[in-house]
Amino acid sequence: MATPEIPEKQKAVIYDRPGTVSTKVVELDVPKPGAGEVLVHLTHSGVCHSDYSIMTNGWKGLHPTPPGQVGGHEGVGKIVKLGPGTESSGLKIGDRVGIKWLSSVCTNCQPCQAGLDGACVNPKISGYYTPGTFQQYALGPAHYVTPIPDGLESGAAAPMLCAGLTVYTGLKRSNARPGQWVVISGAGGGLGHIAVQLAAKGMGLRVIGIDHGSKEGLVKESGAEYFVDITKFPVDDDGKAISAHVISLAGGLGAHAVIVCASSNAAYAQSVKFLRFNGTVVCLGVPEDKQPIATACPATFVAKNCHITGSAVGNQTEAKEVLEFAARGIVKPHFRTEKMDNLTRVFEELKGGKLQGRIVLDLS
Amino acid sequence: MATPEIPEKQKAVIYDRPGTVSTKVVELDVPKPGAGEVLVHLTHSGVCHSDYSIMTNGWKGLHPTPPGQVGGHEGVGKIVKLGPGTESSGLKIGDRVGIKWLSSVCTNCQPCQAGLDGACVNPKISGYYTPGTFQQYALGPAHYVTPIPDGLESGAAAPMLCAGLTVYTGLKRSNARPGQWVVISGAGGGLGHIAVQLAAKGMGLRVIGIDHGSKEGLVKESGAEYFVDITKFPVDDDGKAISAHVISLAGGLGAHAVIVCASSNAAYAQSVKFLRFNGTVVCLGVPEDKQPIATACPATFVAKNCHITGSAVGNQTEAKEVLEFAARGIVKPHFRTEKMDNLTRVFEELKGGKLQGRIVLDLS
Amino acid sequence: MATPEIPEKQKAVIYDRPGTVSTKVVELDVPKPGAGEVLVHLTHSGVCHSDYSIMTNGWKGLHPTPPGQVGGHEGVGKIVKLGPGTESSGLKIGDRVGIKWLSSVCTNCQPCQAGLDGACVNPKISGYYTPGTFQQYALGPAHYVTPIPDGLESGAAAPMLCAGLTVYTGLKRSNARPGQWVVISGAGGGLGHIAVQLAAKGMGLRVIGIDHGSKEGLVKESGAEYFVDITKFPVDDDGKAISAHVISLAGGLGAHAVIVCASSNAAYAQSVKFLRFNGTVVCLGVPEDKQPIATACPATFVAKNCHITGSAVGNQTEAKEVLEFAARGIVKPHFRTEKMDNLTRVFEELKGGKLQGRIVLDLS
Amino acid sequence: MATPEIPEKQKAVIYDRPGTVSTKVVELDVPKPGAGEVLVHLTHSGVCHSDYSIMTNGWKGLHPTPPGQVGGHEGVGKIVKLGPGTESSGLKIGDRVGIKWLSSVCTNCQPCQAGLDGACVNPKISGYYTPGTFQQYALGPAHYVTPIPDGLESGAAAPMLCAGLTVYTGLKRSNARPGQWVVISGAGGGLGHIAVQLAAKGMGLRVIGIDHGSKEGLVKESGAEYFVDITKFPVDDDGKAISAHVISLAGGLGAHAVIVCASSNAAYAQSVKFLRFNGTVVCLGVPEDKQPIATACPATFVAKNCHITGSAVGNQTEAKEVLEFAARGIVKPHFRTEKMDNLTRVFEELKGGKLQGRIVLDLS
Repeated sequence: MATPEIPEKQKAVIYDRPGTVSTKVVELDVPKPGAGEVLVHLTHSGVCHSDYSIMTNGWKGLHPTPPGQVGGHEGVGKIVKLGPGTESSGLKIGDRVGIKWLSSVCTNCQPCQAGLDGACVNPKISGYYTPGTFQQYALGPAHYVTPIPDGLESGAAAPMLCAGLTVYTGLKRSNARPGQWVVISGAGGGLGHIAVQLAAKGMGLRVIGIDHGSKEGLVKESGAEYFVDITKFPVDDDGKAISAHVISLAGGLGAHAVIVCASSNAAYAQSVKFLRFNGTVVCLGVPEDKQPIATACPATFVAKNCHITGSAVGNQTEAKEVLEFAARGIVKPHFRTEKMDNLTRVFEELKGGKLQGRIVLDLS
Repeated sequence: MATPEIPEKQKAVIYDRPGTVSTKVVELDVPKPGAGEVLVHLTHSGVCHSDYSIMTNGWKGLHPTPPGQVGGHEGVGKIVKLGPGTESSGLKIGDRVGIKWLSSVCTNCQPCQAGLDGACVNPKISGYYTPGTFQQYALGPAHYVTPIPDGLESGAAAPMLCAGLTVYTGLKRSNARPGQWVVISGAGGGLGHIAVQLAAKGMGLRVIGIDHGSKEGLVKESGAEYFVDITKFPVDDDGKAISAHVISLAGGLGAHAVIVCASSNAAYAQSVKFLRFNGTVVCLGVPEDKQPIATACPATFVAKNCHITGSAVGNQTEAKEVLEFAARGIVKPHFRTEKMDNLTRVFEELKGGKLQGRIVLDLS
Repeated sequence: MATPEIPEKQKAVIYDRPGTVSTKVVELDVPKPGAGEVLVHLTHSGVCHSDYSIMTNGWKGLHPTPPGQVGGHEGVGKIVKLGPGTESSGLKIGDRVGIKWLSSVCTNCQPCQAGLDGACVNPKISGYYTPGTFQQYALGPAHYVTPIPDGLESGAAAPMLCAGLTVYTGLKRSNARPGQWVVISGAGGGLGHIAVQLAAKGMGLRVIGIDHGSKEGLVKESGAEYFVDITKFPVDDDGKAISAHVISLAGGLGAHAVIVCASSNAAYAQSVKFLRFNGTVVCLGVPEDKQPIATACPATFVAKNCHITGSAVGNQTEAKEVLEFAARGIVKPHFRTEKMDNLTRVFEELKGGKLQGRIVLDLS
Repeated sequence: MATPEIPEKQKAVIYDRPGTVSTKVVELDVPKPGAGEVLVHLTHSGVCHSDYSIMTNGWKGLHPTPPGQVGGHEGVGKIVKLGPGTESSGLKIGDRVGIKWLSSVCTNCQPCQAGLDGACVNPKISGYYTPGTFQQYALGPAHYVTPIPDGLESGAAAPMLCAGLTVYTGLKRSNARPGQWVVISGAGGGLGHIAVQLAAKGMGLRVIGIDHGSKEGLVKESGAEYFVDITKFPVDDDGKAISAHVISLAGGLGAHAVIVCASSNAAYAQSVKFLRFNGTVVCLGVPEDKQPIATACPATFVAKNCHITGSAVGNQTEAKEVLEFAARGIVKPHFRTEKMDNLTRVFEELKGGKLQGRIVLDLS
């Protein structure tokens, strides 16, 4: 492949006032790849709820985001330059790759060596303290950018890099087996609708999707056997009515697993009630305050032999696996493309919780 | 074996006023085995913290205990009569067997068929709505009484039937592997000291025992590599000091598992902090109120990829396995024998939480 | 339901000359249910390759089949009479149930308690030393006949009771995960085509089916991504050409699992070569001689970290699970109905190895 | 630490005539560390049966060993020089490290990313086509040399790097749980006696050791509950007598796992017979011819639901874990120290199969 021309300057969107919903399109220098790095000419980047939490300093107890940071962590594009020492990686100029939430991990710590990259003790997080993918040119380590399979369009690949990867590892951690019942809470959102597709069409699970009624169409199309409209149930009965309904749908005993993609404490409190004996709640969505799950009391764990666990993205192997589901056409992320200039408006829409599927920025 | 003589009347201890710490020794009819049942002449019965909760109606939300009930669920004795239809069980008069917390399970429900007897949908609980083992003669189903291996004295077998079984299944559910670190919280109590022995001497785990300082001797003898005296740490720092200490003992990363034998909310709140990535808290002790575990928030599950689960006794296979550890001399329950007449006093001692090991009633 | 009329005599097919392919339709007494038994008025029975091996005394080292035995072990019909002591089973007259290869298991031995009924130390095998399902009325124990879900026709239910159950547990034991490659060897036969459907349509696996070319249509319809016609490859190259082809189809590394439904030593010898590192061969088909698998040498296990295991039917829970896949329409056994009088001809067809799918006897 | 003086020349032992048992002590240049490499001043190297097979070109089908190669793959010493690009490894001059069978792995292939380094598609094998550890100075990649814990003497550390690691991963792959029975075949050899110690003293397993009678003392000291002298049983009864004996020792049902450290086809043929239902044979020793395991026939896998698998060394995490067992004093390799000049004699002793424990070369 002919060496691509690389400009000096590029267009990027920054968080000009972290703590607020404010973004600004600016011109930045195109970075140069250091040892072990590649330069990627990005064409698409998904917009994730975590970007919103980082921009607004929403998660309690974390360092505030540096003003002027470029956000984003679902970037897709082509390699245009290889830094020194990347020869053995097998990557070539022109290869299409993705940059993920974990821009890089250390590979040496115990979590990394156990395949739990999300718990790496020395990670770089894209779009937080490391410049992210809301820009046209970004750097990634040769050992950790993710090859995008042929036949998967870049716009669809973007949401798979974080939303797709997160729900895939969450479903794996649930230990639910083909033929078993899994509840997806927040089933029509960016994570949720991919979880429904993966579970129902890719993994042989029987899916009950829960969300606001406006999302019923997307959730059903995604493969859910049942849709539960959360607005039809009382909010002041400690989840009794909705859990009785979900349990009856799930074979009368309750679900084998609940994947909580929603970021709400109420969703978490209900999730434990949906479980059958030995069932598992998997936490994916992160509410911004740090409340305990209201139903996570020892007596319940003992009586039900149930489990709660959580998952933070996945590793490189899992990223390749979930992209393969998309390349095979089993998962088709529902997304709308927007221009970089509209990012503030996109975040406002995201904040409302009514967004169906995902927004992907067109970075061209 | 000559058919034993069976008296008409026997001595038993009842809860004469459930809701209070009051017991009464009375004379009762010796029951007659129905179809599928055997009559066991009991010589020993352990006294468990659950007996205390049942007697005092301590657990919120459960049916109150019927006045006059015979408590107890760690009974050991010899079969003296076989009911009709027990021929195929292989049991014989003179066989030594145990009666457990689950006096009987249905064997047909999904939890039973999955080996999770503790979640049986139709169990009989010994000493609650089914007469228990604080009496000289009790009935048990031929398919569910547990053979006691030769060479294990009956007084030592009794605590294995509930305390031993419970901690064994809890340790199994923790998924901790030989060489890994496990914290036993409440390490000097009836459950805890058996958990320490099983973990350290039987299962190849490295044990950190936590309890009040008075129990250090028992915990160390039981095989703990480290003892942590809970009274030496501040109670108002959200567990920071004690968790920093435990993490440093556990290889600097924290424990692979925490087995909570204590029935205190504070113990549970700390337990999550002791964990390393992918670690597991196993709930065994049941606090009487139904508070959530204060540290069980979604952000923590996500960031640590950690787990919480619980275990309620075990199945018949696990009962045989844990008795085998005791018969081999690897586990030696620490117990003191008391007469039936002293049961009220025993419960008062138990209530204080200062008891080392177990009390076993001599039923002769 | 009105009590059905039960005749004194019934029609049955017996093995009149075990050791040969000879069957005979005769009139037999209708049996009477003993304690714990139910009498089932059978309408359908599948014909399995194991029936052939039993009739012909084909398996080396087993006791010869008693002359006059009624064969068959995939029987479906309605309960017409309940024996004494079956009340607690929940079964009623009129319930549709199945009788399986294991007519009964002991429930007490270690394999039974570990959920591995196929290794029960005291089983009754239907159609071998226990009268089977090639008759109109058969007995089964209340605890072990299998409820047939509504909406699944009896003719389709029959093959699920042995062929379906066997391949389902085989697929589970393979540990293959959704998205991974599984080879089904003998993909167009009675077991194989159900395995393909379950794997591809029910369990999220990617299937490569291997069989004679005449079966390509059935295998592809059943969901295989690729069909490999075994007749197109040399038989004298130690499996080199076919394994190179299969490995290239399976992502270039080989299959994660191979399920051997064929009963041929050549199929087994190749199966190990199809595997990628850490892959698993599951033995289901049983060749009549007792040759070792020619490629099962220690150096290969060491170099590939691969596995060989086997599966013999499944347990009651697994039987219910696999019937549920059929009731949901995910698995649709391909079968042809034949009259009882044609059983000898059916066996001759079966012997040739060219049969597509399953034969089900109509017992009316 | 002061920079150590590094000589120009060093002493090494080479295979001067591969295909024969012949070694020669020579003077070689001290190598210089390239990018990512460290130079290790070795003091000890274990001698493994695999070194023998490589020297003699004993394994069928492998490339012949290049004449003049330095053998060895259990090397221990101190880092004396860091190559460029090793800063981030955390290694320092003076650190004690080990060089293993896999001198290096690629880290990028699917087996590496799955933690199965032994199946790496692009490994460097120490002492085969990469110069090994029978020399005073050797190179290793910074990311793959293994830190030796303080308090473990170098002579004892050496055998842990291959023999120890191999048996540890083999025991893990057996899935045997604490309290279960494991047979170690070849229990008194270099691998076997460490397997016995790890299993019995480290992992809570009950061990039956099998070997020639001369090794009974070592096997019993190592922690075996029973020793079986293989010379006391007939060789012409297809393993009937010895398997009946082993099964009776293992609770009457047979062993949960058999770890075959021996490199003999007879040992493998018996191993399958020792198993109980669902048990597992783990292949570690590699016979030089490529015979199938004579008892590995489909009927047996089906009837017993048993498994055969294999293990080839382990990964970096497992290497650290098994060294920790040695540092804690739970495993104490039995070894004798010999001078480099005696290597030919050592190999002759090894060939006879009568060696107890391990030989470690003193490289000073």
